Amino acid sequence: MRIIVDAMGGDLGVPAMVDGALAAQKKWGFELILVGDQKEIEDQLKSVPRDKQPMVVSTTEVVSNEDRPALVVRRKKDASMVRAMEMLAAGEADGMLSTGNTGALLAGGMLILKRLPGLKRAALASVYPTTKSMALLVDAGANADLQAETLAQFATMASIYYQNAFHQANPRIGLVNVGVEKGKGNHLAQETYELLEKSQLNFIGNVEARDIPFGICDVIVCDGFTGNVILKLTEGMAYAAGERLKEVFYSNFKTKMGGLLVKSKLKEMKAQLDYRQYGAVPLLGLEKPLFKAHGSSDALAIENGLGRLVEFVQYGVITQMKQGLEGETREGE
Amino acid sequence: MRIIVDAMGGDLGVPAMVDGALAAQKKWGFELILVGDQKEIEDQLKSVPRDKQPMVVSTTEVVSNEDRPALVVRRKKDASMVRAMEMLAAGEADGMLSTGNTGALLAGGMLILKRLPGLKRAALASVYPTTKSMALLVDAGANADLQAETLAQFATMASIYYQNAFHQANPRIGLVNVGVEKGKGNHLAQETYELLEKSQLNFIGNVEARDIPFGICDVIVCDGFTGNVILKLTEGMAYAAGERLKEVFYSNFKTKMGGLLVKSKLKEMKAQLDYRQYGAVPLLGLEKPLFKAHGSSDALAIENGLGRLVEFVQYGVITQMKQGLEGETREGE
Repeated sequence: MRIIVDAMGGDLGVPAMVDGALAAQKKWGFELILVGDQKEIEDQLKSVPRDKQPMVVSTTEVVSNEDRPALVVRRKKDASMVRAMEMLAAGEADGMLSTGNTGALLAGGMLILKRLPGLKRAALASVYPTTKSMALLVDAGANADLQAETLAQFATMASIYYQNAFHQANPRIGLVNVGVEKGKGNHLAQETYELLEKSQLNFIGNVEARDIPFGICDVIVCDGFTGNVILKLTEGMAYAAGERLKEVFYSNFKTKMGGLLVKSKLKEMKAQLDYRQYGAVPLLGLEKPLFKAHGSSDALAIENGLGRLVEFVQYGVITQMKQGLEGETREGE
Repeated sequence: MRIIVDAMGGDLGVPAMVDGALAAQKKWGFELILVGDQKEIEDQLKSVPRDKQPMVVSTTEVVSNEDRPALVVRRKKDASMVRAMEMLAAGEADGMLSTGNTGALLAGGMLILKRLPGLKRAALASVYPTTKSMALLVDAGANADLQAETLAQFATMASIYYQNAFHQANPRIGLVNVGVEKGKGNHLAQETYELLEKSQLNFIGNVEARDIPFGICDVIVCDGFTGNVILKLTEGMAYAAGERLKEVFYSNFKTKMGGLLVKSKLKEMKAQLDYRQYGAVPLLGLEKPLFKAHGSSDALAIENGLGRLVEFVQYGVITQMKQGLEGETREGE
């Protein structure tokens, strides 16, 4: 198996990307291709024996978060992200990971890697830690406006990915809505409900946002606008809770003592919620395996993310998705 | 001033409604009209001296949360909520409070109390406690699908209400979006941005959901679908954080001791987030003051909610809103 890593664009720079990629390579034994600034990458490879050096593809441009996604492919032809995607499309590797600009990855992915048959859009999935287990949220922000048919396709792909990633059959699919009863919500939610109800998915119906943190479903389905709000509000609330807790602990001598006594257990809890555990998520709906890691990923997150990508390739998840989407289309006819 | 209280439909029954209303009456000195089951209400009024008894309007039906909002006015003519709204519309009182079915209040409100000139819809506002202060969220769930023009009108009304309720000039208006830059988001957010930018409001631009708990703006503007998700997820996350914290404290002897030391400070923090502090919120866009309290309101919440309603009437907020909406229309021409 050959894996391409876009070494540029991460908040922690090339070293974290290279170190994470090398650690993953050691663990899963794939052929590694690093794309990016040659000097920076080679500096980080100095300690690697000559016969074990990964392949390095030198590029001169970098996609930044300020770049307009739709223009990246045309305007930055020598960006590490674009070159890596072109190599992936040409069959020079089996999978790719990048920490770069999500919009550019999606736009580039749809243009260079192509979409699965019948799909109008690709989606971003995101893992969502609940008090019970890990859930998968789709669309995590790729498509602010969506059609119901497309959202139902996202649900099918997310269900298949969930089964593979978490080794659990029949994941429970929940549609984010303002109430649990059928008929609730905006037009998109109402129409998507109808489609999911007719599908072969394990659709448990509408779910209310208050139940999401408690793991009411395994796959959380919503448009990318709502998905983005859910992810960012969850992040903000977790951070605000931490700040409020700090205030409580720093109130006086007594509470400071209390804080010391629970400190290590609190740290354990925080570690459970650490996104680095999971590492990276796939863009759903493309013909090739393309994983996106968080911009702030450190070497451990990259290592774990590449593990997810390796499994994704090994399990043939894209072939499974094609079959799943075809099955739903036939069923719907 | 005369205030009507719909005594039915609260989770805690008539006693909480009557006790809360009596406490508020004592504090703010308005004439009180209680609408609902005569026997239940009078049972709760036994301790009130004969010459201080509030007026009681007897009704035989109750609007439940299962009732379809659009049908309530036609099918349950003798429901306490419907009768109370009719009395309010007829000028028999200056304001009304109910804990009942939100959808029915909105549908009934638009039908019986009428909308302000130029408004297509009415909105539900909700208070949102942040780490800095109290924010106001609109639309809190009344309209899952909205037009940009209507959402901008909601923002104008919410800005005026915020000034009156929190005694703060030029509240900061933020539009919930997936990124801070102009041009981000779905069609509704993009179009609403344009309108808010042109308005006379103190529009600070797009706000991301992660910054909402930290009080990035005073008025949080979004469609009712997103608003409902934000409110319910906030509630769920707060509850989940509490559960996780309990787990930490109950881990072992050491953490239990720690828990005991911070217990009272934690309680203080929780009290700050108590919705009963605020009590009730107005439906924005109606010709008459109609306040909605939480279904689970106890007597204290009802008392506080009626305080908000009294201020709303005293300050002439509806007249201010009419002027504000007219000003924006003239400006936009």
